[in-house]
Amino acid sequence: MKGLPESMKALIAEFTRLPGIGPKSAQRLAFFILRSTQEEAGKFSDAILRVKSSVTFCRLCNNLSDSEICEICANPGRDRSTLCVVEKPGDVISIEKMGRYNGVYHLLLGLLSPLDGVTPDDIKIDGLLRRIRKEKTREVIIALDSNTEGEATSLYLIKALKPLGVKVSRIGYGMPVGANLEHADQATLYKSFEARKEV
Amino acid sequence: MKGLPESMKALIAEFTRLPGIGPKSAQRLAFFILRSTQEEAGKFSDAILRVKSSVTFCRLCNNLSDSEICEICANPGRDRSTLCVVEKPGDVISIEKMGRYNGVYHLLLGLLSPLDGVTPDDIKIDGLLRRIRKEKTREVIIALDSNTEGEATSLYLIKALKPLGVKVSRIGYGMPVGANLEHADQATLYKSFEARKEV
Repeated sequence: MKGLPESMKALIAEFTRLPGIGPKSAQRLAFFILRSTQEEAGKFSDAILRVKSSVTFCRLCNNLSDSEICEICANPGRDRSTLCVVEKPGDVISIEKMGRYNGVYHLLLGLLSPLDGVTPDDIKIDGLLRRIRKEKTREVIIALDSNTEGEATSLYLIKALKPLGVKVSRIGYGMPVGANLEHADQATLYKSFEARKEV
Repeated sequence: MKGLPESMKALIAEFTRLPGIGPKSAQRLAFFILRSTQEEAGKFSDAILRVKSSVTFCRLCNNLSDSEICEICANPGRDRSTLCVVEKPGDVISIEKMGRYNGVYHLLLGLLSPLDGVTPDDIKIDGLLRRIRKEKTREVIIALDSNTEGEATSLYLIKALKPLGVKVSRIGYGMPVGANLEHADQATLYKSFEARKEV
């Protein structure tokens, strides 16, 4: 990167550190910043600092939040008797995008993985049980990835939740909408046969 | 992007403004910043501001620089009697990467384009002529893109430089090294026939 001022080289190096950004893209992005106005650059720079200084975990559900209680938990319009258990913030975004769920969430911030030494004490299961006891939850919907860790965690949760007398359900697994049977993987196809419905 | 704190939404919006970054990538980058340390985020944020506050144009060659005179013009090891005319900073980076040019540069920061109303007064041609007169330049190498604007600018430069008694050359155009004849475009192939050398 000879022929560029130090400050540009430094910014290119910072962009290159980001995931999925190669040297060419980093160069393009740095030139974009250089061409942007002082105000725009200031806003970008501030947004980075603000995320680091203000984002914390919601005291109730463990989702990311700028305040002690997140937007969803603080919303009086949400049905607090239905609780959806997910692994991470990205899962909440997905379900919110779906636009059909009006309950609240509980984020485990991890999945059980005996091989990696992740035990129930390492993820937010204790808080979940305490919350269900306290908040008179009616239904817990388990929405975890259908891999080994997700499966292990779901089974553990079902066992732990049953004694609390709460209704427990799991999201359905099967063929994605619009996908071709021809190209489906065996496990998905099996799940969709298991989940067949009489018509 | 429901289910995320405002500060994260703001950072995702900032990333989405960057060229070539879609909403999904922006989300991934924002999560990366959230996971990075306070110090790392601070460095990134500073690098953005510093580019805007410190980068200026070299008084001699118009390249980007953190100081009045750029690194290349200030380097006593560079041959000041050879001057390469290019359009923009990215061209300097390319030629420096080649590693075989030891002269200095002059950036036009634009190309003549009668259709878009870009005239010789709009690009840095006057400064170039003044500089050549003053600095006893021996050779001017014109290295502009071989499109309509580059061609028009090269022809204009040749006409303007001839009276100054300086040697003027243009970089060679022809087949890229490693490219297939079979897939060459006609214009490139024609250039390479024109530029043939007796062996």
